[in-house]
Amino acid sequence: MRKVFQAELQQVGDDLVEIANLVETAFDRASESLLNADIQEAEQVISDDARIDFLQNQLDERSIDLLALQGPVASDLRMIVGALRMSASLERAGDLARHLAQVTRLRYPETSVPEDLVPTFQEIIDHDKAIINNVIHLLETRELAYADEIYAAKGRINVLHESVFAHIAEADWGSDAQTTIDMTLVSRYMERFGDHGVSVARKVTYLVTGEWDSAPTASHS
Amino acid sequence: MRKVFQAELQQVGDDLVEIANLVETAFDRASESLLNADIQEAEQVISDDARIDFLQNQLDERSIDLLALQGPVASDLRMIVGALRMSASLERAGDLARHLAQVTRLRYPETSVPEDLVPTFQEIIDHDKAIINNVIHLLETRELAYADEIYAAKGRINVLHESVFAHIAEADWGSDAQTTIDMTLVSRYMERFGDHGVSVARKVTYLVTGEWDSAPTASHS
Repeated sequence: MRKVFQAELQQVGDDLVEIANLVETAFDRASESLLNADIQEAEQVISDDARIDFLQNQLDERSIDLLALQGPVASDLRMIVGALRMSASLERAGDLARHLAQVTRLRYPETSVPEDLVPTFQEIIDHDKAIINNVIHLLETRELAYADEIYAAKGRINVLHESVFAHIAEADWGSDAQTTIDMTLVSRYMERFGDHGVSVARKVTYLVTGEWDSAPTASHS
Repeated sequence: MRKVFQAELQQVGDDLVEIANLVETAFDRASESLLNADIQEAEQVISDDARIDFLQNQLDERSIDLLALQGPVASDLRMIVGALRMSASLERAGDLARHLAQVTRLRYPETSVPEDLVPTFQEIIDHDKAIINNVIHLLETRELAYADEIYAAKGRINVLHESVFAHIAEADWGSDAQTTIDMTLVSRYMERFGDHGVSVARKVTYLVTGEWDSAPTASHS
């Protein structure tokens, strides 16, 4: 019985990693689609999102079955409840990748990101990619050094996010209101994407150490 | 033992209602602060948010203790896992009220919402207020008519949210880029606030009927 339980618990962990991998692919494609007005990539992200939702539901059902059939306590119980939380964060991060792809689709064949903002968004994208990549390593290894990488990347995203807002608020920004709306949303989606990585990192840290750390949270914008 | 368990389960339900009441107050104050540039109301929302976070943590700990000590199954188990989900939605709705208050604070003593958008935002606010009010009734009574009210209000918010974006994207909108950024964020926060009400409604419906309904979800913007 115990062996079956451990195998099931392992499966929940594997499911989380699988979802995180799909979210990574979705974000890669969504950010690519934004910078290059690539409608195929955007459509792919939008249609693939259903798979992430399906896997999250499956993981949740598996977790609830484990709670019902095994009545786990202590660290096993916290692991399962934590998995429910982490799957919700990852599913939401997948939604944000889909929102980014939807911006691409709405503006196609125009490129939504103006030239002067491309370098800043490229930096934000790189940090978000580092975050989801470190989330996968953290889920696989539970080595907390990956959590620190995630917090550091989120700190840099917050600064860049503020700088996007400062830039587009300037009088001589020169783009139309539609572009201002789009860039506000894109910056916000990317900032929130990083937040979900931070949520997962805090949860894993808590499961490993039994204590909540004081990680950086959302930007104030 | 069973009696103690039922009392504890009842307490989890009461905690959810208490959190929902605090979120309602936060949203009332935040929307008031936005329309009237009321800095006191805004500061109150921002400082009161810690209480919502505290109650969410307390509810989560209580739920995990219940799972560990009582090993509930079937509908009781689903109720507890559902409460964990709903507390997360309500906590996040509280964060969005705080974000709205932060916009008030950033623009003070200016009013952030331009005259021509006040009627539309007032409508969105009324629908969001109806949503959180119906969430409280739904949690208290489990009568699914309240869920239908929530879905209907969210449907109207989606339409109004799109109309805000259409309005501020117009060439003759005439406001500065900062106002465009603020209104994009405010509209998005209010739209997301309603989504969390829908999440709670769907969860309660599932707990009552055992089936997921097909409720309207987020706007496509």
